[in-house]
Amino acid sequence: MTRSELVTHIKTRQTYLCVGLDTDITKLPQHLRSHPDAVFAFNKAIIDATKAHCVSYKINTAFYESQGLKGWEAMEKTVRYIPDTHFTIADAKRGDIGNTSAQYAKTFFEVLPFDAVTVAPYMGEDSVRPFLDYAGKWTIVLGLTSNTGSNDFQRLGLAGNDEGKKLYEKVLNKTASWGSTDNLMFVVGATRASDLAHIRTIIPEHFLLVPGVGAQGGSMAEVSHYGMNQDCGLLVNASRAVIFAGGGEDFAEKAREAAKAYHAEMKNYLSKIG
Amino acid sequence: MTRSELVTHIKTRQTYLCVGLDTDITKLPQHLRSHPDAVFAFNKAIIDATKAHCVSYKINTAFYESQGLKGWEAMEKTVRYIPDTHFTIADAKRGDIGNTSAQYAKTFFEVLPFDAVTVAPYMGEDSVRPFLDYAGKWTIVLGLTSNTGSNDFQRLGLAGNDEGKKLYEKVLNKTASWGSTDNLMFVVGATRASDLAHIRTIIPEHFLLVPGVGAQGGSMAEVSHYGMNQDCGLLVNASRAVIFAGGGEDFAEKAREAAKAYHAEMKNYLSKIG
Repeated sequence: MTRSELVTHIKTRQTYLCVGLDTDITKLPQHLRSHPDAVFAFNKAIIDATKAHCVSYKINTAFYESQGLKGWEAMEKTVRYIPDTHFTIADAKRGDIGNTSAQYAKTFFEVLPFDAVTVAPYMGEDSVRPFLDYAGKWTIVLGLTSNTGSNDFQRLGLAGNDEGKKLYEKVLNKTASWGSTDNLMFVVGATRASDLAHIRTIIPEHFLLVPGVGAQGGSMAEVSHYGMNQDCGLLVNASRAVIFAGGGEDFAEKAREAAKAYHAEMKNYLSKIG
Repeated sequence: MTRSELVTHIKTRQTYLCVGLDTDITKLPQHLRSHPDAVFAFNKAIIDATKAHCVSYKINTAFYESQGLKGWEAMEKTVRYIPDTHFTIADAKRGDIGNTSAQYAKTFFEVLPFDAVTVAPYMGEDSVRPFLDYAGKWTIVLGLTSNTGSNDFQRLGLAGNDEGKKLYEKVLNKTASWGSTDNLMFVVGATRASDLAHIRTIIPEHFLLVPGVGAQGGSMAEVSHYGMNQDCGLLVNASRAVIFAGGGEDFAEKAREAAKAYHAEMKNYLSKIG
């Protein structure tokens, strides 16, 4: 999906919600647990129920890998089930030396039909480049994450030519030079939304994937206020707060309601950019 | 496998070679390509041929994931085929927020029987902790990698309380405090082996997983000279230089010869620590 297609979907549907399919098998509704294909059955119902209210789905690969072969099968069926009108993200946090990153890129862009994959920056340019080399696909690099561990390294101050900068600022700045606003996004956590205002001074045009709204405590209002640009420029992810909004036989209806509530809020914020 | 078991295997077998099973399906010998289970058939022959000369096998998950379901099946069969006398590493470079890292840890330590998994440090303590929480298992954190991209962020100088330190030094130092020398190792690339002398002043006791010898150009002599401690403290990985040493029907014999040559060299270096 191109940037202009993504922006059109956001403006037409009036939502920038990304629903995170962190489908933890131990949290599935009781009545689904004996289903032979429980994870896919759950995801299918969630997608059907929420697709009018979101513009993207993010599959957290860890929850599928931990189910072994059956999990990978569920992941593949899920990504193929998601309509073409929705931007698909493999939240995989991959990254390795060039020949190995090329294999990961092949996995998510050729073997599986994802639009985007999340990538960790620690190993530098040649670990990111193989993902960027895929025409029509997106690389989403970790900038500033929403967990407490983001303080350990991401917020360290730098010396020398980077005096006054923090590591995550350098990561945003340097990584931005490897791609364009048409094939590169950044993960920016929502737990301190005021950081977003500062981040927008470094990367005003890029799309940001913002996790941490909902279960992790981030505020949709603040994220939208500080993060939005003229193209919207945001994909705000909610995982548990949507998919596990209910725990019974009406789980899909509860997920729809949760997604619909975000949608209503987003419509309001989008009206400000016209 | 405990540290003392690992050290005993190294000293008994007189080798600290780790054979990297980066089994690229496009590089398999011609006669295997029509095999219904080519990757596992190749790995099985490589393991049989090299196990007397190494102490560890490292499975690069990217090369398996890129083959889809069949690849995961080959990975599972391979790790289960490796004898208990050999330390098994999932070279997966995972790392995410706590509840997600817990799923990755489950994948490699419960669903699959690996001894160790490689982890990226960018997201900090809560992204590493779930791996360290597994008794009897090992976490191998990226310190200084062997690729050119390691210059982009890992070697940046830090300011403030960390003045004079580089990012990778801070990563080694801080991460070391989260675990012990019994459950934590570091990836330290071999392309500038003199860095190892310096790294040994920061983490004298930890085991180091050293990639980059062979195809990537690092020197075994220098790595051994600068990196070895009284427990050996090294797992030196060679992937392509061993497994693709030959390309014909005698590929396993060629791999044995390559592994045997490393083994002979290692025996010599080990004699210096008694």
